[in-house]
Amino acid sequence: MSLKSIIIGRPIETAKEKQERLPKFLGLPVFASDALSSVAYGPEEVFFALILGGVALLHFTVPVAIAIALLVAIVATSYFQTIHAYPAGGGAYIVAKDNLGTYPGLVAGAALLIDYVLTVAVSISSGIAAITSAFPHLYGHRVLLCVLAIVFIMVINLRGVRESGRLFAFPVYLFIFCMYVVVLYGLFKFFYSPESHAQVHVAVQASAGALPLFLLLRAFASGCATLTGIEAVSNGVRAFKPPEARNAGITLSWMAIILGSLCVGLTYVAYHFHAMPRDNETILSQTARTLFGAGPFYYIIQFSTSLILVLAANTSFTGFPFLASIMASDRFLPRQMSNLGDRLVFTNGIIALGVLASILVIIFRGDTHLLIPLYALGVFLAFTLSQTGMVKHWLARRGRKGWLRSIIINGIGAFTTAIVLAVIIITKFPHGAWIVVIAIPAVVFISTRINHHYRMVADQLILPVYFHETEFQHHSVVVPISGVQNAVLNALKYAKALSSDVVAVYVSLNPGEEAKIRQEWEHFGMGVPLKVLDSPFRSITRPLIEYIDQVKAQNPEGIITVLLPEFVPKKWWQNLLHNQTAFIIRGLLHFKPGVVIISVPLHLQK
Amino acid sequence: MSLKSIIIGRPIETAKEKQERLPKFLGLPVFASDALSSVAYGPEEVFFALILGGVALLHFTVPVAIAIALLVAIVATSYFQTIHAYPAGGGAYIVAKDNLGTYPGLVAGAALLIDYVLTVAVSISSGIAAITSAFPHLYGHRVLLCVLAIVFIMVINLRGVRESGRLFAFPVYLFIFCMYVVVLYGLFKFFYSPESHAQVHVAVQASAGALPLFLLLRAFASGCATLTGIEAVSNGVRAFKPPEARNAGITLSWMAIILGSLCVGLTYVAYHFHAMPRDNETILSQTARTLFGAGPFYYIIQFSTSLILVLAANTSFTGFPFLASIMASDRFLPRQMSNLGDRLVFTNGIIALGVLASILVIIFRGDTHLLIPLYALGVFLAFTLSQTGMVKHWLARRGRKGWLRSIIINGIGAFTTAIVLAVIIITKFPHGAWIVVIAIPAVVFISTRINHHYRMVADQLILPVYFHETEFQHHSVVVPISGVQNAVLNALKYAKALSSDVVAVYVSLNPGEEAKIRQEWEHFGMGVPLKVLDSPFRSITRPLIEYIDQVKAQNPEGIITVLLPEFVPKKWWQNLLHNQTAFIIRGLLHFKPGVVIISVPLHLQK
Repeated sequence: MSLKSIIIGRPIETAKEKQERLPKFLGLPVFASDALSSVAYGPEEVFFALILGGVALLHFTVPVAIAIALLVAIVATSYFQTIHAYPAGGGAYIVAKDNLGTYPGLVAGAALLIDYVLTVAVSISSGIAAITSAFPHLYGHRVLLCVLAIVFIMVINLRGVRESGRLFAFPVYLFIFCMYVVVLYGLFKFFYSPESHAQVHVAVQASAGALPLFLLLRAFASGCATLTGIEAVSNGVRAFKPPEARNAGITLSWMAIILGSLCVGLTYVAYHFHAMPRDNETILSQTARTLFGAGPFYYIIQFSTSLILVLAANTSFTGFPFLASIMASDRFLPRQMSNLGDRLVFTNGIIALGVLASILVIIFRGDTHLLIPLYALGVFLAFTLSQTGMVKHWLARRGRKGWLRSIIINGIGAFTTAIVLAVIIITKFPHGAWIVVIAIPAVVFISTRINHHYRMVADQLILPVYFHETEFQHHSVVVPISGVQNAVLNALKYAKALSSDVVAVYVSLNPGEEAKIRQEWEHFGMGVPLKVLDSPFRSITRPLIEYIDQVKAQNPEGIITVLLPEFVPKKWWQNLLHNQTAFIIRGLLHFKPGVVIISVPLHLQK
Repeated sequence: MSLKSIIIGRPIETAKEKQERLPKFLGLPVFASDALSSVAYGPEEVFFALILGGVALLHFTVPVAIAIALLVAIVATSYFQTIHAYPAGGGAYIVAKDNLGTYPGLVAGAALLIDYVLTVAVSISSGIAAITSAFPHLYGHRVLLCVLAIVFIMVINLRGVRESGRLFAFPVYLFIFCMYVVVLYGLFKFFYSPESHAQVHVAVQASAGALPLFLLLRAFASGCATLTGIEAVSNGVRAFKPPEARNAGITLSWMAIILGSLCVGLTYVAYHFHAMPRDNETILSQTARTLFGAGPFYYIIQFSTSLILVLAANTSFTGFPFLASIMASDRFLPRQMSNLGDRLVFTNGIIALGVLASILVIIFRGDTHLLIPLYALGVFLAFTLSQTGMVKHWLARRGRKGWLRSIIINGIGAFTTAIVLAVIIITKFPHGAWIVVIAIPAVVFISTRINHHYRMVADQLILPVYFHETEFQHHSVVVPISGVQNAVLNALKYAKALSSDVVAVYVSLNPGEEAKIRQEWEHFGMGVPLKVLDSPFRSITRPLIEYIDQVKAQNPEGIITVLLPEFVPKKWWQNLLHNQTAFIIRGLLHFKPGVVIISVPLHLQK
């Protein structure tokens, strides 16, 4: 108890729940770090995709970035509407389930849950990879370091959502600040030193004739990696201080504005300062170095970029538990996922995410390169389903204010994200995306089985089905004894209070024992009949279970109580010195219907 | 159940116990393989020790071998007497305990137990080392191979002592046959081709002047490794068919005769055919090659020698469980050690030995060279204690037939083995023997703590101490409920039959719930009062335990029954989908004195 409080802090009262929620300025770093981290690699993807068509095609980086920013705006608008329509949270899962049906909802939920696990594994591994590049002797310990990093973020999140917000706010704001400085200083420098134009224009004019549409589409699809993480706010609306929907919506808007403007701004500056896709240096690093030289500010930018890549994991630690708790409340995941822990967070969801991500990291030996292709698929599946759901949502509300505009926005969003999804599936299927294509239905299947089980249980526990308030027909009490001693007689006293039909049962392993035990029983047995069972194969439990079955057969309508005399040693390890027969019998009887089990423990004093 | 029968066979009735015992011709291979395996390295040790004083000293190999054979005879005689004096088995442990006191007995027992574990680890590792020398690509898997070999011998022994006897009899008899062929053919060849004498005589005469006594003593002590394993029969007397003592004694005599004659015979032949201690070929291999050339018979000898080295482990798998069961019957080891398993062997002892030896092999990465110095210490400690014990035994029986002769024999035995023990401790202490010197007292200490615990328990369970056949002062029944449903009402019916003081307790996590549950209770609660406990920190168990403590405080003399309504899902994995609160409560209450726990399970049908 005490160790737990040291690690995750003292329990917080339920009554203080609202005070523990996030204000907007802490909500932004918690929910935006995943999306913002994509700024570090989204534009890069566009450069890499376009250069395949020759340097001239880099001319299209800025238009593509603008298209991506538009998509960010569309998707964010859609989620903004979702947040207000579903202020209890749940995002794509709830929208799809409500408007398209249970299965689309589960598909969206499963896709996002898988994606959150992948996000943690990939972002932590890439962060640790950055550290092991700097300190190569740590390379051999990378798996351990990854797991420790996951455990660290997990523990911070177990300490409460405010704690993770406070601790991780600074690096996120630092990153945003750095990026805007790059963009603004770049624009300033560009417009005041126009000589840098010339070269680029020449290059473009040389090959402006050809326009390979496919390459442009692919560049757009690759750049759409920027959108990953944008949906997290919609799942965790209830993490915000009231009015939840309003605060979450405002946070989402800020996030979208920052994301869109940085995407266009960074691409514009990078393009105009001649950044080139290279294997050994990122576009962002090239741009920053060109602008500021390899001075302290350059290193701050690099440092905050690595930090934001790791912190992308932190968003998942809020998104996953909230989504899992909502799906658990709908009985599609184990109900433990919706238990609020000591610090008012969904402890089991946080631990489940940490464990699953650690397993991935261990399986892939800390090299999650192979996981990156799997990454965006789930998110875009969720986007498409949620936008389609919103189209149906507005169709059902025809005539309300702005319904047509909303349908057009969500329709464009659904169409665009569906195309991106198709491109991702086609281009990345052979590189591992098939794993997700298998995993999503698997998770959906498990969810439906879980739901089926809960419905079955509820059916059987609901009151009028079995219940008859009658007396028991007959009550037989069986007391297995291991000898004539204190713990047994203690139990016998209790048994006699229960019923007049009490039988003590002794399993005899050696033929000679019976006479001796009968003689002792004569004296101490309180008049309770003793049944001695032979056990030719030396099993204690088998003859006993058989006897209980016999007693049951004699009174099929009656109830049987098995009363187990036990003694409890003073120290737990002393249990190792005893046969634990009572424990084993209890375990076996647990699965036998119509048997009540009583433990009458005698606590040893020394 | 079925898997267990496939692996270790169907259970055997207790009544058939005597039929499952070993006849002498199977007892010899089971108990002799450890002792016989020392023939493969005992004489070798003598050669290595003597060559330190120059080639001339090899002249003393045969006299030293004769001295060792005499010691074999003395020790065997002593154990022969022990077997007849203590036909229930237990060997050195029983002799020392009975005649010298508990602590010397425990020291002997601990020394032998440790030695059995070491024997398994060392013999299996050396066997696997022979295999990996032949197939070097298996070297990387040596630890796994060692563990598999241990598991194999363990499973054979779990199948019953006859099974291990039958399976391993052939290789043991093959080895004995091969060794006698070497000795007899060697003697025959030697006496019919006397030209081989000359050279040796010359060498001896050249340095006969100096006789370094210390070297001779050390050679003797080293050669005493031949005696390891000789004590096993005395521990497992009860593994023999009746008359147990007679059969065990005869087997021991055969074993001693074979051991002594082979020791002298092999040394004699090896010496006279000029075998020299070498690092890359054993004395035995040199002798066999000289006699038979590198033909098929030579390879059969080599093969059966490697096999006997591995089978030395098999003796431990009989010795250890028997000794452990005897010590457990005396309450110096966990009582589970004396449980007879399905196949009438001491299953837990066999498994314990397998696990301990595997741990050693894993820790030492299959390279148990380091363990060899630890090896003989325990055995000679046990020899010394048992011989000393026998001296006291005969002193107490002064005047009986042969008492003086016995005292002289055992006295010489005790004196000699004590000297060997001292030599081993002095020469091998820095090479690791100190581990055993620490381990033995540690095992002794644990044994006495175990014994203390059992005595404490027995004191408290013995009848007249606590027992008063009176009625309970007051019987309070507490029924924790999770809602108003079938499983709860089922339990409530039972509770009402127990006592008139029944209280249902509901732990409320949300302030709003109380009114709703009270309303339902009004209708279904059978008139039982309902107590709603608030839980500001969302713990189910804490408020409940506090409430139970309150109830206890109100009736300190009374008894409290906590009745847990449970439902049992149809499939075990479905338990993962429920909170297991009942299970946790049961676990917590188990350690609370004066509380009886009742499980009233409702078994779900689907």
